[in-house]
Order: sequence, then structure tokens, then C-alpha cells
Amino acid sequence: MSKLTDAERAQLLPELEAAGWALNPARDAIEKSYKFKDFVQAFGWMSSAAICAEKLNHHPEWFNVYNRVDVLLTTHDVGGLSQLDIKLAQRLDRFASA
Amino acid sequence: MSKLTDAERAQLLPELEAAGWALNPARDAIEKSYKFKDFVQAFGWMSSAAICAEKLNHHPEWFNVYNRVDVLLTTHDVGGLSQLDIKLAQRLDRFASA
Repeated sequence: MSKLTDAERAQLLPELEAAGWALNPARDAIEKSYKFKDFVQAFGWMSSAAICAEKLNHHPEWFNVYNRVDVLLTTHDVGGLSQLDIKLAQRLDRFASA
Repeated sequence: MSKLTDAERAQLLPELEAAGWALNPARDAIEKSYKFKDFVQAFGWMSSAAICAEKLNHHPEWFNVYNRVDVLLTTHDVGGLSQLDIKLAQRLDRFASA
């Protein structure tokens, strides 16, 4: 696993940004805030996300209060964004819209 | 539900502080950071906590990264600590030591 190259970023990030992700340059991370109907919906989504994260062996930094979940993805081992962050972001979005 | 009185605080907070909770005066909240063996243990505990929170209809503000969960409890409706925070804190500790 290695840090995304400039070419990979140019190719991969626009689609995530269109889906509501924002680049956090200070952390070299991507961030998104999800809103759900209520706590049960939010935590149900977190449970799907947790199983997916464990399978990928790649875990989010996330904050929850009631129906809101703020997610930050970065790859600590490479000190910035990697393909794992892109893959996890895409799956989290898929669960949220399921 | 109402804000804890000074007398209630003097009676209830020392036990929680001995269990690792700290008062956050700016928020009139209590905070604790839990550490688990790994992500699966951390999220397992969060799942128990989530069901308990939903039953109490009182939800934490919490942040998770890998095996760590930082929890902040306060009662938004009363603008500070209430009996619900004490009850939820005690249950969260019980699950963590089970």
C-alpha cells in the first residue's frame, strides 16, 4: 500500500467530491458527514461500515452524535491517502444509499 | 429531567471520577476515553452501548479510532448534566468490564 500519486488523485478524487467527500489537506485525508433519520439508522449504518472496515483491515476515524456520523479516512501507515481510503469511502457510500 | 443540583453532583461525581470520568466544565459534560484490545472489541462494546442508549433515549457523543472510543455525555435538553448521564455512564462502564 502506498500514498496516492498526483495522477491517481486527479483520477479518483473528483468522483468522491461529487459524492460529498472533502479533502482535508492538513491530514491528507478525506472527510464526509452523513445524516440519517435517527440514531437507530445511524448506528445501523455504522455496523455495516464496521464489518466492512474490519474485512478491509482499514478503519475510519469517526464521530457520532444522534443521527449524524462524521467520517475521516486516511492511511496511517503511509501518512496520507491510499487506495484503501478510496475503496472504503465507496463502500460507505454504497451502504448509506442502500 | 433537570440539571443536577450541587448536592447531587457532590454525591454522584466522585464515584464516576474514580472510574475514569472527567468533568468538562465548558460543556457541563462528563468524558471518558475507553481502550480495547482491537477494533472488534471496541465496536462490540459500542453496539451494546448503542442499544442501551436507545433504550434510555439518551445518546452519547462519541469518537472512535481503531481500539479507542472517546465518550462525552451531557443532556442537550437541559443544557448540562442530568441523572440520565449518570445512569448511562454507569451502564457503559458495566459493559466495558463485562
